[in-house]
Amino acid sequence: MIRMSCICVDAMGGDERPEVVLAGIEAALAESDDLSVLVVGDEDVVVPFCAHHERTRALVSTEVIAMDEHPTNAVRSKRDSSIVRGLAAVRTGEADGFFSAGSTGAIFAAASLGVGRTKGVKRACIATAVPGIMGRSTVFLDMGANADVRPDMMVQFAHMGRAYARTVLGVGDPTVALLSNGAEETKGSQAALAEHEALAAASGDAGWFVGNCEGTDLLAGRFDVIVTDGFSGNIALKSVEGCAKFIVSQLREIAASSPRYATGAWLLKPGLKGLVSKLSGDQYGGAMLLGLKAPVLIGHGATSPEAVKNGVLAAQRACAAKLVERLAAEVQAEP
Amino acid sequence: MIRMSCICVDAMGGDERPEVVLAGIEAALAESDDLSVLVVGDEDVVVPFCAHHERTRALVSTEVIAMDEHPTNAVRSKRDSSIVRGLAAVRTGEADGFFSAGSTGAIFAAASLGVGRTKGVKRACIATAVPGIMGRSTVFLDMGANADVRPDMMVQFAHMGRAYARTVLGVGDPTVALLSNGAEETKGSQAALAEHEALAAASGDAGWFVGNCEGTDLLAGRFDVIVTDGFSGNIALKSVEGCAKFIVSQLREIAASSPRYATGAWLLKPGLKGLVSKLSGDQYGGAMLLGLKAPVLIGHGATSPEAVKNGVLAAQRACAAKLVERLAAEVQAEP
Repeated sequence: MIRMSCICVDAMGGDERPEVVLAGIEAALAESDDLSVLVVGDEDVVVPFCAHHERTRALVSTEVIAMDEHPTNAVRSKRDSSIVRGLAAVRTGEADGFFSAGSTGAIFAAASLGVGRTKGVKRACIATAVPGIMGRSTVFLDMGANADVRPDMMVQFAHMGRAYARTVLGVGDPTVALLSNGAEETKGSQAALAEHEALAAASGDAGWFVGNCEGTDLLAGRFDVIVTDGFSGNIALKSVEGCAKFIVSQLREIAASSPRYATGAWLLKPGLKGLVSKLSGDQYGGAMLLGLKAPVLIGHGATSPEAVKNGVLAAQRACAAKLVERLAAEVQAEP
Repeated sequence: MIRMSCICVDAMGGDERPEVVLAGIEAALAESDDLSVLVVGDEDVVVPFCAHHERTRALVSTEVIAMDEHPTNAVRSKRDSSIVRGLAAVRTGEADGFFSAGSTGAIFAAASLGVGRTKGVKRACIATAVPGIMGRSTVFLDMGANADVRPDMMVQFAHMGRAYARTVLGVGDPTVALLSNGAEETKGSQAALAEHEALAAASGDAGWFVGNCEGTDLLAGRFDVIVTDGFSGNIALKSVEGCAKFIVSQLREIAASSPRYATGAWLLKPGLKGLVSKLSGDQYGGAMLLGLKAPVLIGHGATSPEAVKNGVLAAQRACAAKLVERLAAEVQAEP
C-alpha cells in the first residue's frame, strides 16, 4: 500500500497570479489519489480554495518574498512569508515535501536553514533534469547554489546526482561526466582538474565516472548525470536559456519578413509549444534541492498550471521513492 | 590610399575539402581589390589554383594537422604543416594576417609560438562576435585559450575586447560586462569576485565596466563586450551550440510528426539557414586571436565558401583598421 504524501505548496510563488498555482494543485489532486496538499499563502487565497477541495489544508501566511529580493535578507526579515512558513511545516513533519515557483535563492536559503541537510552531506545543491536528443535526459547539477566547490564536495554531488537519476530517470547504474572546456582529461581549470582526479578515484572499478564532457553534451542525452560547480552550471543553463530566447526572437523576425515564412511559422506553432516547455524544465517539475532532509522542488518562475502540477507530482514521487533516504545511503557509503 | 593587405590562407584547414577554402578565397578576391592571398597547402592544391588567380601566391607545405590531433604535440612535430608554415610567413612579414578553418588549439599554439605576443600582453586569448537580439552584437572572450585567469589578465582581456569591438562592431566607447552566476555584484566564484573588483578599479571614472552579467545576456545584445575566463567561456559557447543543435533536432522530429508540421518546416527552411549561419559565428569571419603581433582568424570547422570569404575579409579589415596597433595602445595605456 502506498502511503499518502503531503506536499506543501506555496500559493504565492512565481511570476503568475496565485490562480495559476491553485489550478496546478487542482490538476495534481485530480491525477493522484495518494496526494494531499498543504496550501500556504495569503488568507484570501488559500482559505476559500481549501474550503472547496478535498485532501487540502490551508496554512495562512501574511508575507510574500518577491522574485527580485535579496534571498538571505528576505528569508531573515520575512519570517511569516509563504516560503519560510511552508518550509517550517516540512521541518515539523506537517508536510513531507515542498514545492514553490518562487525565488530560487530564497527557497534554497530558507530550506538550508529550515529543513536542514542530510547527515554526511557537506553542501546542498540544486539539480535539474534537462532534455536530450533522442529522448534521453540528463541530470545536471549544481545549477548555482555553490559558486566554489571542493573536489570532495564534487564527489558528493556525483553521488547525489546518481541517486536522483535512479529516482527520476529510472536508470539503474547512472554514468557521471564532469563539465569542462574539453573532453580530454588534460583539459580544465586547476579546480576542474582536481575534481576530475577525485571523481576518478571515487568511481574506481565501479566505473560510473566517464570523464570530462563539454557544453555541447548538456542537451545531447549522452550521459545520465553531468556535474559541475554552481558558477559554471549557472552559466551553462543560462546560456542555453539565452540561446532558446534568441532563436525564438529570430523565428519571430523571420516570420514577419515574408508571407511564406509567416505561413510556415503559423503551421509549426502548436508543435513549437512543446519544445519551449521541454527546454524550460517543466517536464520533470523544475529544479530539485539535493542533500536536504525532505524533497524541495522549485518551479520555473514563469509558470503554468501544467508546470505546477508536474512539480507537485514530482515532489510526491520523490517522497514515495524515498529519494532522501537513497541519497543518504549513497553519500554515507562513501569512505 | 589603402595599402594592399596580404592574408595567408590555410587551404588544408577545416572539415571540408580544400575546394571549399579555394572557393572562399576566390570570392574574397572578387569582393576586395586591396587583397592579396598567400595560399598555403599541398602542392597539387595550391599551385594550380594560384596559376589561375591574380593576386595570389602559392606556399607549398607537405603536412596537415588534423582537427582531432593534440594541439601542442602536433605543432611541435609537424613543422612543415600548413598551419605552422603559414604562421611563419606572417612572422617573417611575407603576409600581414592569417586565416584557417583548422584546429583552434593548434592554431592558437602555433600562433603564440610563431607570431608572438604584442609587447605588454600577458596572455593571448580568443574572441568572437556573437549575434544578439535586435541586431546588436557582442564581443565575447576568452573562448577557451586560458582556463585559469588572474584578475590583471582579465583587465587586459577587457581592453583587448574593447579594441576589437571598436574595430569590428564600430562602437565608440564599448561597455564591458563580466560573465557570472548572477547580475548582482555579490555573485560569483572567489575568482570572479576578484576579477570584478579589478575591472571596477581599472574602469574607474571612465565607467566602461558595467558589472556582472549572466549567461542569458550572451545573445541578448545588451553589452558590447563580455569577458570571462576560457573555462566558463568555452562552456557558455558550447552550451549555446548544443542548444541550437538540440532545437534543430527537435524541429526535425516535429516536422516528421505530421503533414501540417512538415509543410510549415518546408516553408520556413530557407529562412532558418541564415539563423544557423548567424549562430555559427560565420558572419564576422569566425574567432580572432587577440594579443598577437598580427591578426589571426579561425573559421568554424564545418565551413562554407561564404564563411571562408568572410574570414579572409575580416582578417584584411583587421589589418587595414590597424587592430593590432590599437590593441597595443589600449593595453599599454594601462598603468
